[in-house]
Order: sequence, then C-alpha cells, then structure tokens
Amino acid sequence: MISKLIDKIERLQAPVVVGLDPMLSYVPEYLQKQAYEIHGETLKGAAEAVWQFNKAIIDAVYDLIPAVKPQIAMYEQFGIEGLRVFQQTVDYCKEKGLLVIGDVKRGDIGSTSEAYAIGHLGRVQVGSQSYAGFDEDFATVNPYFGVDGIAPFLKVCKEWDKGIFILVKTSNPSSGEFQDQLVDGTPLYELVGKKVAEWGETCMDGAYSNVGCVIGATYPEMGKALRKQMPKTYILVPGYGAQGGTAEDLVHYFNPDGLGAIINSSRGIIAAYKQEAYQSYGEKHFADASRKAVLDMLADIRKALGK
Amino acid sequence: MISKLIDKIERLQAPVVVGLDPMLSYVPEYLQKQAYEIHGETLKGAAEAVWQFNKAIIDAVYDLIPAVKPQIAMYEQFGIEGLRVFQQTVDYCKEKGLLVIGDVKRGDIGSTSEAYAIGHLGRVQVGSQSYAGFDEDFATVNPYFGVDGIAPFLKVCKEWDKGIFILVKTSNPSSGEFQDQLVDGTPLYELVGKKVAEWGETCMDGAYSNVGCVIGATYPEMGKALRKQMPKTYILVPGYGAQGGTAEDLVHYFNPDGLGAIINSSRGIIAAYKQEAYQSYGEKHFADASRKAVLDMLADIRKALGK
Repeated sequence: MISKLIDKIERLQAPVVVGLDPMLSYVPEYLQKQAYEIHGETLKGAAEAVWQFNKAIIDAVYDLIPAVKPQIAMYEQFGIEGLRVFQQTVDYCKEKGLLVIGDVKRGDIGSTSEAYAIGHLGRVQVGSQSYAGFDEDFATVNPYFGVDGIAPFLKVCKEWDKGIFILVKTSNPSSGEFQDQLVDGTPLYELVGKKVAEWGETCMDGAYSNVGCVIGATYPEMGKALRKQMPKTYILVPGYGAQGGTAEDLVHYFNPDGLGAIINSSRGIIAAYKQEAYQSYGEKHFADASRKAVLDMLADIRKALGK
Repeated sequence: MISKLIDKIERLQAPVVVGLDPMLSYVPEYLQKQAYEIHGETLKGAAEAVWQFNKAIIDAVYDLIPAVKPQIAMYEQFGIEGLRVFQQTVDYCKEKGLLVIGDVKRGDIGSTSEAYAIGHLGRVQVGSQSYAGFDEDFATVNPYFGVDGIAPFLKVCKEWDKGIFILVKTSNPSSGEFQDQLVDGTPLYELVGKKVAEWGETCMDGAYSNVGCVIGATYPEMGKALRKQMPKTYILVPGYGAQGGTAEDLVHYFNPDGLGAIINSSRGIIAAYKQEAYQSYGEKHFADASRKAVLDMLADIRKALGK
C-alpha cells in the first residue's frame, strides 16, 4: 500500500495529506441551517452538515492531493450518526481516487487489536461471507501495549496490502511528558522508533515499509534524528500550519530521494475561509478557499524542498 | 461517578465487572442462525447475533454485578452495524441499573481528545440543543500523549460527573516492552501512575478519585507496589481468569478499606458455556452458564478477600 501512496505523491508532486477533522464550528452557518431544516438540530442534522462540508472540500481538492486523513474522533463525537458520515467520507474519498489514512489511533491487547485491525483495514468473517467494516487504506496505531498490540495490524497489512502509521513522537505540547523520558540516555520515542523500524522490516513494499510512523512537525530536531535512524519508514507529519510547524522545519523529515514523509494539514485547509488570508472567498465559497490553501501549502513545501 | 460505583460494589459485595467483548465465535450457533435467517450473513446479521447474545447475558447477570465493560473494538470490527449494537448494549445496561465502563482506550492531542471525551462521556452541542453520543459512565484512556490528551477527559468528568481509567500497566505479555523501561531507575508505568494520581487529585469524589487506572491482574507484584503509591486511585483490573490472573494475585490490588479495585472478566464469563466446568449447561443455556460463572468468580474473590 505504501508504494501506491508513493506513486500518487510522485505523480502529483504532493507529499501532502488533508486532514478531514471537521468541527461543527468550521461548517459555514448556511450549510448547518440547510441540514437542520431537513433533520432538525439533531445528531443526524449535525452529521449531515459535516457530510455536506466534507463533500464540498473533497470535490474541490481531490485532484491535487494523494490522500486524506479523516480523524475519527471528530465523527465519533456525534455518536452513530457521526460514524456513519465517517464511513461515507472514507467511501467517497476512495471513489474519487484518494487514499484514506484513518486517523483512529487504536491499539490494545492482542485479541482486541486484532478486532480493530480487522474493522479498519481487514475483513470480518460472517458465516460464509466476509465484509470490510470501514476499509481505510492506512490506520494510525498507538504503541503503548508493545508488539502484542501491533502484530495483529501487521498481519492484516500483509493479508490485505494495507499500511499503518505508529505514533512515535506526537505533535502536542505535552508529548514529551512520557515520550521524551530517557531510558539509558535514549528517549522513549527513539526506542519506539527502533521497534517501528524493526516491525517494518517484515512489511516491506518496495523501498519503504507499509509500517510508517507519526512524528509531529512541531519537533523538527527530533524528526531530523529519527529520519536517519529509520530510513525505510514513511513519516506521517501532523502539526504543519495551525499547530505551528513550517515548511523549513520539515525538510529534514524527507530522505535524499525526496520521499519518506507526508505532511498533514487539517484546520489550515478545511477551515481556510476563516483565516485572514482567505477571507475574501466568503463562507459560500469555503471549498474554493480550501483549494487555494492546498495550492499554497504545496507551493510552500515544494519551495522548501527545492522543487 | 466513582462513588456510585463504590456504592454498588459495597451493596452487592461484588468488586467485579463483566467484560462484554463478544467474538462471533462465542455466540451459540443457533443464535447466529436465527439472526442470519432474518438479516442474511451480513454485518447486520452478525450485529443482531451479538445483540441477542449480549442481551441474554445481561438479563442473566445484571442483579449480581455493579458494572459491565463493553470493549468497543469487538463491535467496531462489524463497522456501523456493530457500533449500533455497542450503543444499544450501553443503553440497555443502563436501563438495567448497571454502570457502564466503555473500554475504548481513546487518547489523542488536546482538541481530538476533547471530541472523544464529549462523544463517550459528555454532550455535544448541535445548534441550541445538546446530545450524548454514546453516554458511557466511565471510559478507558491511553496516556501516551501526556496531560494534553487527558485534560479534556478531566474537564468532561467534572462537568458531567463521569470517570476514566487511564492505562498504567496493561495485562498483555508484551506490556513491558515500553511500559517497564526504566527512567532513572523508575519504570515508565510508575511515572504514568504518579501522574494519574496527580491528575486524580483534581477530580475527587469522596475517598476516591473519578480518575482511576488500569493495572493487569497478570502483574501482581507491580499491582501491589502501585496500590501503595496511589491510594486514592481506583484500579480496574483486567486479566483475571482466561488471561491467567488468580484471586490470590489480586488481594493486594485492594486497600485496607476493602475497596480500591474492580476485577474484570470477559471471556471467562460470556463464553463460560464453552469451558469444561460449565459444559453441562449446553449452548441453549449459555446465559445460565454465564450467571454461574459470575457466582463462582464472586465466591473466589470474596474468599481471597476473606469476606
């Protein structure tokens, strides 16, 4: 699966993923009103507003980018109705030719991780039939349980040609609280990184592994060091834009082959129309503002990479 | 919320929670067939079979125990249809007077953890209305992100009188891979435990905190040490029975007041009819086998606690 992502990144010259993390406050008033007129101010109404918002943005940007990364929490907050729109969003993005990174950050003991892996990346057996629950192409995974929690994902990745990105160093301010703790002089996130590289060796797909990792754009020195330690591991990089990471910070997340990293922006793209720079689009043209924000992000990153 | 759980535990003399973690292979053939006859061998059919299985077990044991712990992964593997049955199970357990610990192990950067906290324990605003997405009483939370990932849960716990159990030392064989790493001579899980106790101080509800922790029954020495270090923290203990933990192992997870721990059993209860000890019930009476398994577990734990 990582080779499919790389093909798309190279063809579009776009090592970029758009995070579909819709807060209701990002959805223009008029879209919310339309949805509430049909479904009332209900969970279904909220979910419908989010769906119309997502669909317009996907339609506006799908030809520019290789992949999207819907954050399932933003859908889960609306219960079943929200999760239905998560699924609808995954399906629609795949129809449009986008790869889908399910930002689910699941992870548990072995038998439970297996259920998550099957639900998000594999197929579940029902009598003589089998079905995909959510069917993303990639999922993000939490490493706290050690290999037991990861192995079922590796199995499913091999069986169905899928990929995962395991959390190594997250983008949030307090990520160091546990991740930076020194173990014999080595920070924990580096130990996790070493394991990720090791696990990844068993899941190679061309020059890179189907087992990637997550390293926040907000810790560029750590990203630089980790990049060298895990050369075959694709890095999913959140934290660009709204969280403070700049394109210059991100250059060292890439390998000399110009590959090895994919940069996520969520709020900066999907709520672009709320920013001063794109205010002139107005809320009616929020999706055009998102398209312009993607083009600007691409230009920014290409420039930093000297392309 | 923890005081409600303690009241129930004391009234029933039952520091026990039943894990509703249904694998399709646990559901008796005849129940699966009934569901497939109506809905076909589909995700809906599988979900219906799980629901009928859950309902029968809940009806058979609800008067003996204070709480249940549905593991959301087992539902998520069936996609939306499975998650609908997760919700139905939560709602039904609450109707029966049970407290519900959503075993969701969520956790992310701040804004995302907020969405999870709202979705599972709080209420989401939709226009002038607010709604609960899943509305469990407690949720399990992953600490890898540090305080940013926890704070939104604390906020929601205070606002809606709910509780969380944060992973400290998990029950699986490889939990030590990262959790046992020594930081200046102290294992990481102990550092996490210290933070959990600290966070818990801000969420007290009587003698105990609404912020509990998870410590596996499979590591009794660590449980004993942690018990002393975090006296006001309720410990949710998975790993009894099928995973290998015994009642004697668990005595030291309790405080001198006889409180402070709640022991989970999943497979050992819900798939009891498949064990040699309860085989005589037959698959038609699987729920009666589960009731007997709960009674046996209660006797085992009461005996170990000298009650």
